[in-house]
Amino acid sequence: MVTLKDVAKRAGVSIATVSRVMSNSDAVADKSRQRVLEAIEELGYYSNELARGLRQEKINAVAVILPDISNPFFADMLRGIDDVLSTCNYFILFNNTDNNIKVEKKCLENMRSMALSGALVYCCHKSLDGLADSLPANSDTVFLSEGGGLNADNIHFLSFSRKETAYAAARHLYDLKRQKLLLLLSSFQQNDSDFIDGIKKAAEETGGSYCTAYSSVNEKDASRVFSCAYSDEHPDGVITESDIQAMGVLSWLHTNEINVPGDISIVGLGNSSLAQCTQPRLTSAAPSGYQIGMAGANYLLNFIQKDSGNFLRDTKTLEQMLLPNIIVRGSSKW
Amino acid sequence: MVTLKDVAKRAGVSIATVSRVMSNSDAVADKSRQRVLEAIEELGYYSNELARGLRQEKINAVAVILPDISNPFFADMLRGIDDVLSTCNYFILFNNTDNNIKVEKKCLENMRSMALSGALVYCCHKSLDGLADSLPANSDTVFLSEGGGLNADNIHFLSFSRKETAYAAARHLYDLKRQKLLLLLSSFQQNDSDFIDGIKKAAEETGGSYCTAYSSVNEKDASRVFSCAYSDEHPDGVITESDIQAMGVLSWLHTNEINVPGDISIVGLGNSSLAQCTQPRLTSAAPSGYQIGMAGANYLLNFIQKDSGNFLRDTKTLEQMLLPNIIVRGSSKW
Repeated sequence: MVTLKDVAKRAGVSIATVSRVMSNSDAVADKSRQRVLEAIEELGYYSNELARGLRQEKINAVAVILPDISNPFFADMLRGIDDVLSTCNYFILFNNTDNNIKVEKKCLENMRSMALSGALVYCCHKSLDGLADSLPANSDTVFLSEGGGLNADNIHFLSFSRKETAYAAARHLYDLKRQKLLLLLSSFQQNDSDFIDGIKKAAEETGGSYCTAYSSVNEKDASRVFSCAYSDEHPDGVITESDIQAMGVLSWLHTNEINVPGDISIVGLGNSSLAQCTQPRLTSAAPSGYQIGMAGANYLLNFIQKDSGNFLRDTKTLEQMLLPNIIVRGSSKW
Repeated sequence: MVTLKDVAKRAGVSIATVSRVMSNSDAVADKSRQRVLEAIEELGYYSNELARGLRQEKINAVAVILPDISNPFFADMLRGIDDVLSTCNYFILFNNTDNNIKVEKKCLENMRSMALSGALVYCCHKSLDGLADSLPANSDTVFLSEGGGLNADNIHFLSFSRKETAYAAARHLYDLKRQKLLLLLSSFQQNDSDFIDGIKKAAEETGGSYCTAYSSVNEKDASRVFSCAYSDEHPDGVITESDIQAMGVLSWLHTNEINVPGDISIVGLGNSSLAQCTQPRLTSAAPSGYQIGMAGANYLLNFIQKDSGNFLRDTKTLEQMLLPNIIVRGSSKW
């Protein structure tokens, strides 16, 4: 591998001079500077990112910190983020966290040590207090999820309203004359009070009722939890916190020959590509992971590029992209 | 942001001295070295990665270059890769390529400029010739897919055998007395001759027949293409190149009240988490994306860490992880 020393030798100058050239110092004679630059070129010294680092500029990379890429909601989100960032020549440093705050802290601290341009973070804690010390002071972080406890000029939030989305899903079912909803929440999310508040509001407006159950975000566990809740509660409508859980519910209902939507209606959340693959097709509430990823990446770019005069998308447009919208398919309406 | 100049000022030395300290040069008095290190500490200079860069070491990051993260096969793969790499403290630089060789080239060239530790690449070209000039000379690249045309000490291949996997899937169906298979291939893959060879071998052994059709890797297009192929060919068995396509096929058959597996058996490929969510559950051929990701990341680490004496997994074990295995569920066997 080519070293600073090799460059210095080829250019016939000291290592210190090479280093001065790379840090854009003025204290180098033009002739020496020219020789150093030629040597770098000839030897194929990895100049781009290293030189950038030496000048203490940020590298064109954004940390993307998501709970679990094997959940299609987050896979769609990463795709949305990449579709925006790659057109602007930003790399993605990707991390799974399993919603573990220790892992989230570590990812953010690593980002700080690498002087990245920014970060997009989705985490599901009620309070983000624990992350305050780990956030980079010199770059912008956009949270794609709600969560209190952080307040600084370079911390931003762009998230869909879980309360409004849950409200829209519940109103859809109550308006179809469903009376007793089961909320299948994710044991993984820790900020579910907003979600329940949305359902509560719809229940109060319509005189409907609801109960809650918790499962992991996988088909099998959702199926198991739903089977217990179903025999206890006999709901005629279900709202699941993710489309994967809805698939588990559909699967159990199919096995037990309970008609969907004749006997029971189902609404998922996140309108993932899965929703079009079920039988019947799954009604699901947007925004999708893809929309959230696209909007979040545009929002972050507004901050990263604020000095460049590139104004990508105004906040209002981005927020509108994330308004709740029920995509009605066969699983809810007959 | 703290600069080299700030560090030099605080330490009371020249910038050149700071640079010498960071490049681990011996030509610095111990006392000055000490002062520089203290100044770096006090000022919170982003020392980790930059210092590493200055010493021309590679950064602890691996480029992961995959076609499309919104395909669960690749989302599972990224999860498998991250589960291995994060325990060894390697970051992931992630890129979607949509199997576009220009994008793949660009990703690899970026990696070269950043002096990453290695790369994991999945691409679907018959020949990888076009990538030869873009591959980093100083780090290892592991291809998780087959493809000829590359030959160098730092280029490695660890992939499942598409031919053997297709053979196993076809034998499974022919052994169930299915006679006429439809192969639903992906218009996205360009290296499908191995795949067809596997089916051909099984057909010749058993006296069965087969025909082929091509669709995009999405449920709707698979459904559309299958509906045409079905009326022309009346297959009694289907093998799809991805589980997503199988979901499209299942959906069309369900709508048209054709019994699965009574009238027709279906086998997917890649045993994604989706396979457990369909009705009936989908028979699918392993290895899964997750297994390929795990094996590939371990394989790459063997090369990256070869000098450290850490021997993670022998190649034979890794190859065995990727042997074909039909996970039989309700969609094929009655």
